[in-house]
Amino acid sequence: MKINEATAYVKPHLTKERFDHTLRVAEEAVALARLYHVDEKKAELAALFHDYAKYRPLKEMERIIRVSQLPKDLLNYHHELWHGPVGALLIEYEYGITDKEIQSAIHSHTTGKAHMTKLDLIIFLADYIEPCRSFPGLEEVREAAKSDLYYASYLVSRNTIHYLSSKNRLIYPDAFYAYNDLVKYATQ
Amino acid sequence: MKINEATAYVKPHLTKERFDHTLRVAEEAVALARLYHVDEKKAELAALFHDYAKYRPLKEMERIIRVSQLPKDLLNYHHELWHGPVGALLIEYEYGITDKEIQSAIHSHTTGKAHMTKLDLIIFLADYIEPCRSFPGLEEVREAAKSDLYYASYLVSRNTIHYLSSKNRLIYPDAFYAYNDLVKYATQ
Repeated sequence: MKINEATAYVKPHLTKERFDHTLRVAEEAVALARLYHVDEKKAELAALFHDYAKYRPLKEMERIIRVSQLPKDLLNYHHELWHGPVGALLIEYEYGITDKEIQSAIHSHTTGKAHMTKLDLIIFLADYIEPCRSFPGLEEVREAAKSDLYYASYLVSRNTIHYLSSKNRLIYPDAFYAYNDLVKYATQ
Repeated sequence: MKINEATAYVKPHLTKERFDHTLRVAEEAVALARLYHVDEKKAELAALFHDYAKYRPLKEMERIIRVSQLPKDLLNYHHELWHGPVGALLIEYEYGITDKEIQSAIHSHTTGKAHMTKLDLIIFLADYIEPCRSFPGLEEVREAAKSDLYYASYLVSRNTIHYLSSKNRLIYPDAFYAYNDLVKYATQ
């Protein structure tokens, strides 16, 4: 699929604000892909589609989770976690995108998971550091992203766990598994 | 087993400092058991034995984990996590204590786990709040312990995850499962 086609497909599914965020994530993802020797086009496509399912009706997402091979435990967690896994499936159903690397990166961009590929990490990281984000600790992540994809991704994972626990929120197991998998890059 | 027998069995296995800590945990555990209507004698026995295996040689603990039904993944985590599960088995091998409630509380006192019983929570909490402990956030936990066993235990779990991640340490899955299970008591 061509980039301009993907952009045109995504746009009507997002709010203006979310579409602008998506373009910034795509730009960031391409820059990271170049830096870390990952296929830039895959990074751009994954980024363009990462929030594709964000505004699908909850009932529709719930049904897709129930009838597909997606993990059923998603239904026990906040629906904010559904759009990644559901989006990764929808781009296959609706546009025939069956690239497993792209689908994996979209699937896991919110929580992370254990054993992420470089493409997975790039989308996970780009979504966190795109220029209009503002979180405590973000500058440290942006700085790390310039030289160490793994350490920067660890920081995203750790900060996310801190944030969620400080808000007394449930944490999806894949977010924990991402942390435990990435923490080795912090201690080297 | 009588309390004075248990005390006599434990004492030679611990340093003076650790034995004094154990007596404080036992006192705290009995107070919590009274407050939350749990068998006080079980709480006292579990507390007395909670650190029983703390100073066993690592090689011995490793062997016990390998040959017993204990989860093998413990071996991939810090050996500080081994003394609870190993101690829960050793008191059965060495003193014939087969009370599953007591063994469970000893097993899980360091990490917690999902679906903890009140006795499990009491040992988990007493070990954290005994009077000579000093951590950031401890006063909030002590205050909560006076009126809400579950919320106080949630705070222990959350603080532990914060502490470990701030030190870039691996987190044993049961600690995550404890957090996700207890967080509901924070949001009520």
